[in-house]
Amino acid sequence: MTAAPGPGPDAGLLSPVRAGTPAEEAVDDRAWLQAMLDAEAALARAQAALGTVPRGAARIITEAARADLFDVRALALAARETANPVVGLVRALALLVARKDPAAAEYVHRGSTSQDVLDTGAMLVSARVLRLVLADLRRTAEALRALAAEHRDTPMAGRTLALHAVPTTFGLKAAGWRDLVLDAADRVARVLETGLPVSLGGAAGTLAGYLEYAAIDAGAATDDGTHPGAMDRAPATTDDGTYPDALNSAFAAETGLAPQRVPWHSLRTPIADLAAVLAFTTGALGKIAVDVQSLCRTEVGEVSEPAVEGRGGSSAMPHKSNPVLATMIRSAALQVPALSAGLAGCMLAEDERSAGAWHAEWQLLRECLRLAGGAAHTAVELAEGLVVGPERMRANLGMTRSQVVSERVAAVLAPHLGRGPARDVLSQASTTARRTGRPLAQVLAALPEIARHLDAGELAVLLDPAGYTGAAGPLVDRALRRPGGRLP
Amino acid sequence: MTAAPGPGPDAGLLSPVRAGTPAEEAVDDRAWLQAMLDAEAALARAQAALGTVPRGAARIITEAARADLFDVRALALAARETANPVVGLVRALALLVARKDPAAAEYVHRGSTSQDVLDTGAMLVSARVLRLVLADLRRTAEALRALAAEHRDTPMAGRTLALHAVPTTFGLKAAGWRDLVLDAADRVARVLETGLPVSLGGAAGTLAGYLEYAAIDAGAATDDGTHPGAMDRAPATTDDGTYPDALNSAFAAETGLAPQRVPWHSLRTPIADLAAVLAFTTGALGKIAVDVQSLCRTEVGEVSEPAVEGRGGSSAMPHKSNPVLATMIRSAALQVPALSAGLAGCMLAEDERSAGAWHAEWQLLRECLRLAGGAAHTAVELAEGLVVGPERMRANLGMTRSQVVSERVAAVLAPHLGRGPARDVLSQASTTARRTGRPLAQVLAALPEIARHLDAGELAVLLDPAGYTGAAGPLVDRALRRPGGRLP
Amino acid sequence: MTAAPGPGPDAGLLSPVRAGTPAEEAVDDRAWLQAMLDAEAALARAQAALGTVPRGAARIITEAARADLFDVRALALAARETANPVVGLVRALALLVARKDPAAAEYVHRGSTSQDVLDTGAMLVSARVLRLVLADLRRTAEALRALAAEHRDTPMAGRTLALHAVPTTFGLKAAGWRDLVLDAADRVARVLETGLPVSLGGAAGTLAGYLEYAAIDAGAATDDGTHPGAMDRAPATTDDGTYPDALNSAFAAETGLAPQRVPWHSLRTPIADLAAVLAFTTGALGKIAVDVQSLCRTEVGEVSEPAVEGRGGSSAMPHKSNPVLATMIRSAALQVPALSAGLAGCMLAEDERSAGAWHAEWQLLRECLRLAGGAAHTAVELAEGLVVGPERMRANLGMTRSQVVSERVAAVLAPHLGRGPARDVLSQASTTARRTGRPLAQVLAALPEIARHLDAGELAVLLDPAGYTGAAGPLVDRALRRPGGRLP
Amino acid sequence: MTAAPGPGPDAGLLSPVRAGTPAEEAVDDRAWLQAMLDAEAALARAQAALGTVPRGAARIITEAARADLFDVRALALAARETANPVVGLVRALALLVARKDPAAAEYVHRGSTSQDVLDTGAMLVSARVLRLVLADLRRTAEALRALAAEHRDTPMAGRTLALHAVPTTFGLKAAGWRDLVLDAADRVARVLETGLPVSLGGAAGTLAGYLEYAAIDAGAATDDGTHPGAMDRAPATTDDGTYPDALNSAFAAETGLAPQRVPWHSLRTPIADLAAVLAFTTGALGKIAVDVQSLCRTEVGEVSEPAVEGRGGSSAMPHKSNPVLATMIRSAALQVPALSAGLAGCMLAEDERSAGAWHAEWQLLRECLRLAGGAAHTAVELAEGLVVGPERMRANLGMTRSQVVSERVAAVLAPHLGRGPARDVLSQASTTARRTGRPLAQVLAALPEIARHLDAGELAVLLDPAGYTGAAGPLVDRALRRPGGRLP
Repeated sequence: MTAAPGPGPDAGLLSPVRAGTPAEEAVDDRAWLQAMLDAEAALARAQAALGTVPRGAARIITEAARADLFDVRALALAARETANPVVGLVRALALLVARKDPAAAEYVHRGSTSQDVLDTGAMLVSARVLRLVLADLRRTAEALRALAAEHRDTPMAGRTLALHAVPTTFGLKAAGWRDLVLDAADRVARVLETGLPVSLGGAAGTLAGYLEYAAIDAGAATDDGTHPGAMDRAPATTDDGTYPDALNSAFAAETGLAPQRVPWHSLRTPIADLAAVLAFTTGALGKIAVDVQSLCRTEVGEVSEPAVEGRGGSSAMPHKSNPVLATMIRSAALQVPALSAGLAGCMLAEDERSAGAWHAEWQLLRECLRLAGGAAHTAVELAEGLVVGPERMRANLGMTRSQVVSERVAAVLAPHLGRGPARDVLSQASTTARRTGRPLAQVLAALPEIARHLDAGELAVLLDPAGYTGAAGPLVDRALRRPGGRLP
Repeated sequence: MTAAPGPGPDAGLLSPVRAGTPAEEAVDDRAWLQAMLDAEAALARAQAALGTVPRGAARIITEAARADLFDVRALALAARETANPVVGLVRALALLVARKDPAAAEYVHRGSTSQDVLDTGAMLVSARVLRLVLADLRRTAEALRALAAEHRDTPMAGRTLALHAVPTTFGLKAAGWRDLVLDAADRVARVLETGLPVSLGGAAGTLAGYLEYAAIDAGAATDDGTHPGAMDRAPATTDDGTYPDALNSAFAAETGLAPQRVPWHSLRTPIADLAAVLAFTTGALGKIAVDVQSLCRTEVGEVSEPAVEGRGGSSAMPHKSNPVLATMIRSAALQVPALSAGLAGCMLAEDERSAGAWHAEWQLLRECLRLAGGAAHTAVELAEGLVVGPERMRANLGMTRSQVVSERVAAVLAPHLGRGPARDVLSQASTTARRTGRPLAQVLAALPEIARHLDAGELAVLLDPAGYTGAAGPLVDRALRRPGGRLP
Repeated sequence: MTAAPGPGPDAGLLSPVRAGTPAEEAVDDRAWLQAMLDAEAALARAQAALGTVPRGAARIITEAARADLFDVRALALAARETANPVVGLVRALALLVARKDPAAAEYVHRGSTSQDVLDTGAMLVSARVLRLVLADLRRTAEALRALAAEHRDTPMAGRTLALHAVPTTFGLKAAGWRDLVLDAADRVARVLETGLPVSLGGAAGTLAGYLEYAAIDAGAATDDGTHPGAMDRAPATTDDGTYPDALNSAFAAETGLAPQRVPWHSLRTPIADLAAVLAFTTGALGKIAVDVQSLCRTEVGEVSEPAVEGRGGSSAMPHKSNPVLATMIRSAALQVPALSAGLAGCMLAEDERSAGAWHAEWQLLRECLRLAGGAAHTAVELAEGLVVGPERMRANLGMTRSQVVSERVAAVLAPHLGRGPARDVLSQASTTARRTGRPLAQVLAALPEIARHLDAGELAVLLDPAGYTGAAGPLVDRALRRPGGRLP
Repeated sequence: MTAAPGPGPDAGLLSPVRAGTPAEEAVDDRAWLQAMLDAEAALARAQAALGTVPRGAARIITEAARADLFDVRALALAARETANPVVGLVRALALLVARKDPAAAEYVHRGSTSQDVLDTGAMLVSARVLRLVLADLRRTAEALRALAAEHRDTPMAGRTLALHAVPTTFGLKAAGWRDLVLDAADRVARVLETGLPVSLGGAAGTLAGYLEYAAIDAGAATDDGTHPGAMDRAPATTDDGTYPDALNSAFAAETGLAPQRVPWHSLRTPIADLAAVLAFTTGALGKIAVDVQSLCRTEVGEVSEPAVEGRGGSSAMPHKSNPVLATMIRSAALQVPALSAGLAGCMLAEDERSAGAWHAEWQLLRECLRLAGGAAHTAVELAEGLVVGPERMRANLGMTRSQVVSERVAAVLAPHLGRGPARDVLSQASTTARRTGRPLAQVLAALPEIARHLDAGELAVLLDPAGYTGAAGPLVDRALRRPGGRLP
């Protein structure tokens, strides 16, 4: 095995669903590092806005808060000493700042604690990915809208428990997919709108450190770089009980996140909400994926993935054109519920900050984010390029030689024979048809109890699968009236 | 092993968290059976309201739809023949109805399919349990509000990573618990408000069976018990494309559920939403449970569960008074995320109806419902009766002999020594204090670099843990301004 | 909603996969109650065998330890007071015993603790179910052996990523299923053989209570009903340090379980092992189920489930014969991994006994047991009755008009054209064949670079799918040489 | 946000438990790439050994199969075209080989398929990590053995449901931990011994491609670089049905893995076994972690993590020394069961190769491997350096002022008062002692029914917690007789 100098790249070799997608880049170690630095810088600026950190110091801290100035591997290794990467990050950031201005370095992470920075960074990363996901869900929905409209009246076999059941339309199927994708989009949008919050608790959720330093530093902004002695005075801004709220608002404003309602170090609502919507998202897309796989089976052949040169090839079989987009989406959908359950379990975070439940979240959350992001990105391509074959659908619909409408014939006969007997007649006729290979029409026509009530012409009309799509058309119309949301 | 005649009772022997709670009764086999019967009856009434089922038939069906008239075990066993309990249920219901009026029996399950009935029944059961959960969450929140208000200024050790960190207040802890419980309540309420929907798809989601019978039956209501022949006319109500919507609305009205947006046999939004809010609910309550356990450990002793005669006893140890309520709540919180992940995985339901993914939901959903219902019920008792010990909190807060405020002293010294050196001084002094068993005040007072900046009086003030609770008080006030929702 | 007097039955209405199966009865509340009573009785007999409980008392306790003498609902409700059902059970058992002999009642649960009884009971229940599962797995494997042997040379399409890949045989598929089922059987057998242990720890795993009472009671056996005073003497049997081992062995002998290695109240190896093998079992059976579903799709139709009068019917569609056995098995396979993860998570049991992690196991374990038991029971029926259609397999194999052997032609051409160019030729020819609907043979024959190397006869041989099943036959032979284990 | 040129490093920033550990490097993208290349090279050598690939070609392929010659990011991106990274890898490898010898390039991936290479690579990676895990588990067990031996008779409070129950010893606790770690080691060793297998199926598990090329290539070895025409002869080695077995063995020999029993593309026993043992491993280590956290709480203080300069610091609180090793281990233990459940779910792999269930395994498996590897590595440090405080244990044991031995006194009184009354007396006396703060001895001595049977001296002996550790000592001795396995 070849020696590896330094950590290998997080190239996505084992996760093609997200390899090279925007979500992947938005959550990798560098992005997370940058987000934590963004949090540190935003905190300093927020404190500066309130007059408790010199504006110049906040400016220098902001300038230094660039991920490319840091050794992410060194930070990761240092994280083993403290079980989180922020302690080392603060040290490294302070050193960088000190090179420009030793006094400014004093204001790095002022009054703060690791979890405030990591959680705020996690929210920044999550918000970025959710916006990507939302845009891709809307594009997917838009493509599905077009498919549903185009195929509003394209009949196909409705399949239940693996078998032809009654006819449906491809339009209704696509409209259903779209509805589910919009459900996902709504849930993602709701999390974005109600707002992923900043985290601002200080060492144990009381903001005591922030307040203490604020009391000390209150005059610093005017002095820019120097600061008064401790204990000799408490500035007005921190004295009247409004400072915590003001800092919360200012931090939110600087990050673009929502203010928190309460310090949430061990009240993990934002994480649980993310876990839920990300599992919903991959579940919704995964439903489409398994349907596409069902429909593109060799024997079914009703849809196929967009043909792209070189796409879908096999290392062994020249003739194959694998449904790789659906496969990748499904691979994400099989992973995220499990990861999401892990995150939900982390709600059991003991005390003011947990010794482990918090730490277990980070990688699970990242993985959920990039799998959902990758799946949504992949779904756009699948939905926009899906090739639909109405002829094959029609041909397959004829496969059972009208057994697929046995329900209808039974219904029509029910007033004459009673519903139970009508059902039995159809059930036996279907069995006969299957065994003998004769069309159901022929079998039925030969039965006196049928012939008594339905002549050949009536039977022919009843047995045309395309004539029994129920409310599929109006259901499509209704579903498509649901707004799809602003496209990116 | 003693032979068991018939199925054993679902007594909750292995699940004390829900044994005997209202949620348990609301989800057991009988309740589920009743809910499916309610769905059948509501469907008949809805059809009657639209003139496609005779009103008399709907009335007789409604009268027969009583769970105590059915053999639930026989239905369960019959379900093995069709992989769901509805086929047998319909047969049994039709027989019962036929005893009163054979013509009415024709209208049982008219145009319907198993999944419409089971899913609608599941929504009825779920809505009933969610309302129980919501009421209990609000009562719990109200009890926590009282605790938070009473202990707004009760200082205690804030604990992070298992160790004393900085002081906090019990009021802030209780206010945080409440906030999390209200987050759960909001999510439960949202699912109830946006509405758990009826399921109305017919055999493959097109409503074709409903429409077909409606066309046949349209004159039936006036004839009450007789009906015209098939195919000779299509009634106005089913001809203009509005029948599906009208049936959806009427079915919703009869059940008290919401109308569906699209047939959702394999678009499992309602199930996924339920899975998410139930996992959130037990997670929120589980957080409280682990905190209570942490605080009631023998060495900590800051809270205890309500003392009830006979409660908390051990089979071996006479002196014990176990935190059984927290234990039961936690037991639910450890189960539901896993079950919920199983439900989320069932979103991958292929085709118009899945061969297995649907079937896997039922027991998982029931279990999530009753565990969440049981946990919420148990949490009311825990929150309303929690015994809080401010003296012990104060005593424990003193255990580190002021190391718990090392952050503050470091902050105060930072302007004088620089933040890094100040931190180092405190870190070394804390180590010395731990090793020697001396109070931090003594160790610090002996250091010239401290004495230069802080006299004994200043040090004493700084080192009083009760003086360093930061914004705990205002944070409690702010949190308690959040409305708790209507109490039951 | 009709009022429910007492708890509803655990009839399996929502879990047809286990309704009425032997595993269901083996794990219900009554069975679990009986198993715990068996543990109490075995403990008393074991103590009697060692001379620390009077033989007469042990006999009376054994006689009273019959589930039908207890009110399981009352015990379940009482369990809320102590978070487990054993405290109430012991009280009720002692009362029953006391009615016959008050002195004997003193020896109920002598020195013991709730967890010893519940865990030992859980092992008894688990062992009973594992034996059922093992027998059913072996019967399933035997049926699959017969299928594999019969269809050793039945060609069919091998399908990968939903598409025809290269030919295989049904024999190889069945042999693979069997191998997986035997893997499951091996794992189940290993757990049974290495032995599910008794639990014997006493209050906190030191056996102190057992020893203390043993010291007190050592003379009791001879006195039968009276016993000497405390503290005045310690009997030989408990004095030399061998009593714990002796009790462990005697308890194991009386229960038929294995002795424990160490007290395992919070060392959950047996539970984790059970969780793993039960998830493996349903996973293995679930693999067969999804394959059966794939093969019985209307368009594929290569296998069907055993035709049984009334089986597989739909409430709406008279023609359907749903793959209900596979559906039920898959429904179990979708649930158990999630439940099993919950159990694995319970390994994090803090202290000498956990406040919640233990309690969370019970219902999860029961559910895993009965789902696996039900799935195995159902799998026997599926495997023994599976209807295989070689003609349809052959017909489907021809669907791609020889594209399914493109790999082979490419291989044969590789020495002439180079492997890459040969692959490209076949890939393009396959595309042409798909687009034009012409057989691959025709397309290939028209290409000069092919004709140069292969004449029509050679091409015909190469393009016969049945001629390209590779080592399928020998692989079947090899797989079937694996012993299937003793049949029940 | 700073632009990221190329993929970021997989530095472990969010997963300190594995950052920089040997397991991390053994599973990163480069390692996985190398393992797949190792598989390709081994396959060529195996074929060469059987005379179906020229030895020279196998040598050149082996030389080219070095990960550092490949662009892992390009391969990851290319994997999106085929849903797996092997197609692109084969292309790149063939190009590299062709530069040295175009004829040799023909033999790259000869007759093979993507899944054979990826699965074999996965087994190589897994075997490497399992060996690391096994060694670390054994070192951990050895350290725990020493702790158990040293503290065989160190009394401490046994804690159940969060409360002091009865006394135990730290030796028994450590011996229990060791036993659980050895259980994990046994399970890991069993997987290694029964052997992680090569994967050898060809396109759909029949080995047809291997056989076809073998037939073509059989003379190639002697010709070294040239090869005979197709179809004109079939070499002896591939004709007699033994070639598949021979190739299986040779491939196994070249990789160091076990031969497969059957092609396992969709029979996922090895993956399921890995998932189970990795979840067991982190569960076992996680149990130790939660115990360490329980024991190092500020109020308990009975153990602490090894003191290392700079370790365990907080970004805010100078006095803290966080239990970071336990925290990191627990963070892994909270993740792996969920990931493992995802893997178990992937057993439902349809057809000859699944469209998604296979693809979902890769990242889940890698994550389980590196979390388990990281946790085991961290556990060594924790176990070897754990600081134990017998004085604090003794002091805490006295906290309840002898209530912790109430079980014993009740036992001793049972012969005199009856067990129930004795229990009640102790229960009331304990309550009195708690309420009044008086030692239990005092309360008991004042009760006439006690004084009648026990004098002050007897009471004092009975009430000494250190005298009531039951069989703790012999249990430690017994547990330590279990062999710990060969140390690395």
